[in-house]
Amino acid sequence: MSDDFNPPQRILMGPGPSNVNPKVLEGMGKPVIGHLDPEFVRLMNEVQQLLRTVFQTSNQLTLPLSGTGSAGMEAAVANFVEEGDPFLVGVHGVFGQRLAEEARRCRGQVTTVEAPFGEPLNPDDLRAAAEKCRPKVVAVVHAETSTGVLQPLEPIKEICEDFDALLLADTVTSLGGHPVAVDSWGVDICYSGTQKCLSCPPGLAPFTASERALERLHSRTSKCQSWYLDLSMVCQYWGEKRTYHHTAPISMIYGLREALRIVVEEGLQNRWNRHQKNHLGFVAGIEAMGLKMHVSREFRLWSLNTVAIPETVNDLEVRQQLLSDFDIEIGGGLGELQGRVWRVGLMGETSRSRNILYFLHALEKCLRRQGFQCPNGAGVAAASEILGRLSVTEGEPLD
Amino acid sequence: MSDDFNPPQRILMGPGPSNVNPKVLEGMGKPVIGHLDPEFVRLMNEVQQLLRTVFQTSNQLTLPLSGTGSAGMEAAVANFVEEGDPFLVGVHGVFGQRLAEEARRCRGQVTTVEAPFGEPLNPDDLRAAAEKCRPKVVAVVHAETSTGVLQPLEPIKEICEDFDALLLADTVTSLGGHPVAVDSWGVDICYSGTQKCLSCPPGLAPFTASERALERLHSRTSKCQSWYLDLSMVCQYWGEKRTYHHTAPISMIYGLREALRIVVEEGLQNRWNRHQKNHLGFVAGIEAMGLKMHVSREFRLWSLNTVAIPETVNDLEVRQQLLSDFDIEIGGGLGELQGRVWRVGLMGETSRSRNILYFLHALEKCLRRQGFQCPNGAGVAAASEILGRLSVTEGEPLD
Repeated sequence: MSDDFNPPQRILMGPGPSNVNPKVLEGMGKPVIGHLDPEFVRLMNEVQQLLRTVFQTSNQLTLPLSGTGSAGMEAAVANFVEEGDPFLVGVHGVFGQRLAEEARRCRGQVTTVEAPFGEPLNPDDLRAAAEKCRPKVVAVVHAETSTGVLQPLEPIKEICEDFDALLLADTVTSLGGHPVAVDSWGVDICYSGTQKCLSCPPGLAPFTASERALERLHSRTSKCQSWYLDLSMVCQYWGEKRTYHHTAPISMIYGLREALRIVVEEGLQNRWNRHQKNHLGFVAGIEAMGLKMHVSREFRLWSLNTVAIPETVNDLEVRQQLLSDFDIEIGGGLGELQGRVWRVGLMGETSRSRNILYFLHALEKCLRRQGFQCPNGAGVAAASEILGRLSVTEGEPLD
Repeated sequence: MSDDFNPPQRILMGPGPSNVNPKVLEGMGKPVIGHLDPEFVRLMNEVQQLLRTVFQTSNQLTLPLSGTGSAGMEAAVANFVEEGDPFLVGVHGVFGQRLAEEARRCRGQVTTVEAPFGEPLNPDDLRAAAEKCRPKVVAVVHAETSTGVLQPLEPIKEICEDFDALLLADTVTSLGGHPVAVDSWGVDICYSGTQKCLSCPPGLAPFTASERALERLHSRTSKCQSWYLDLSMVCQYWGEKRTYHHTAPISMIYGLREALRIVVEEGLQNRWNRHQKNHLGFVAGIEAMGLKMHVSREFRLWSLNTVAIPETVNDLEVRQQLLSDFDIEIGGGLGELQGRVWRVGLMGETSRSRNILYFLHALEKCLRRQGFQCPNGAGVAAASEILGRLSVTEGEPLD
């Protein structure tokens, strides 16, 4: 058996995990205490309050679920969909498809409204479908990790109001990198993951639900089909009673506490500005190299950039070379975009000028090996100009 | 907002989490890499092989699920129970009740066979029930964390063979502290938690399933109602294809790798002996103090000791004093044993002579404050004698 495990120091520019601040790793290494210890209960309260700040909500039920972002999705669907419930879901990527699949497994009556993978959903299509199916829940992915599209949520709020439906939003790839305003956008059920723009290791799903959603939860006629993710019990442990449900993942919650404090210390607005600025620098570099972004300008995520792979270039070889020769991880396409795009994450700690410049440098070298000619140094030069122009220090507000 | 979080150095003698070896915490702090990184894939293979060693199995499907032990239970039930399937469960504690509840939520036809909380199940009762309900799965808790009872599994194997049922066993509190011989005991579906006798922080559920169980899984007529825990997909990621399903909790898996290496380095037999010896020393101390164990000698768990609370003693005050004055955490009773027993865990790193002696010393002081008179120093003296007699160094085989 080999001895020490020494993972390489990667630059994590894939769809997550992103790079983790050493303070977070240090936090996870603190002595484990019991999940009912008064000191842990204090920490739980602090983490909940930090999550409320980041989600921009006053929802009492705001907590980290004991699983990855996908467990957050499962909780969001399983707690709010009963057999036969009409469930309307916008599908413009793999994670929308997954939401529909989750709802089918909960025996919901699923209606899908689709948009091409790379475009946002059309609210008019959702409204037309809602008129037909009278949904109890309308579910959309705010930040489609599979396509790089940001879905505006405010137009969907109105549809939900008109049909008295709950608005469910997946913010796995936006929370902490893009504005996510749960209360003012009228989002009733919202979940995320820790390993994206929050820059904590994967393992927890930040989750929040409105009073309106809780009323629905408490008026269910059947039990939630997941015991592990049953919010009616989970919230007893995270509420005043602290009733044991399952043993909380102590060390992960230590880590999340540190990650959230870093977010709040930077300031939400500063953090969004940093993500936006670095995204713009990245795009300038990509375009100067003669490559194209997959998503049109106005709907691009800052946190997850889909770059169209030129036809003459071998997807897998480039990704493998980036990893082996430059210690840079990026993601391949998912679902129908497999082989057609690269997914480059600029999330949380990873969203730094130095990573973007180094990536553009490395990508140019890899593309050259494939015979793809891009103007010498054009990518880094263009990015450098934008990154320098927009702000001197990272975190400074963008005008 | 407060600054640094500095958790106290507790002696974790509750029902879990147990104390964690610093090497495990150090492991969790290593740089995060991607869940599809070739270096991580190597680590996954190593962790799977270590889990096979600890479970004493050659099952291909052996992996850590991305949730706590309760997620392991949910996966065990949700993947192997379809609507209407007859499911026989032995209930001799809270976790047996939970298994039954999980199966009901999967719409199984649940039959329960009960034993008092503090006694094992009677195999004859299980056989009689099996004759009536012809179960597809027989589920039992090997180590009932709520009662401190060890349930012999070998007699149940025969019942499962006779009725062609799968044997499902909960080994959350036994794996790594008691022998768990998945293959030779004919266990088809088995799960555990990381925060008990494996002494890793909570957050993962070691899981294994036999070839026979996999055949059942692949012949399901409906989809598993949990997408997150659907083994038909999870095992694609943990199998040769490494197909993305959800982002694995990287840092927790780093930690589990270290925890399992410590187990294997100590040696399974040595580790079981250590747990047994320390349990015997503990019991000698408890009885010398005039207290009684809740479970009769032959069915006692080594890892989780239930001590009957004397009638004149205030349960909560004693536990609070142990925590505040001695930094010792123990557990209260669960379910119908609430207020009637203390649950004292001697799991993994926590199962050490020094912890037992200090606990007996502390308990004596706390009981005196309540007016309960125990012979001066009798507990520590009796324990000291047994602990010294049985073995000079911990880890040495017991004759």
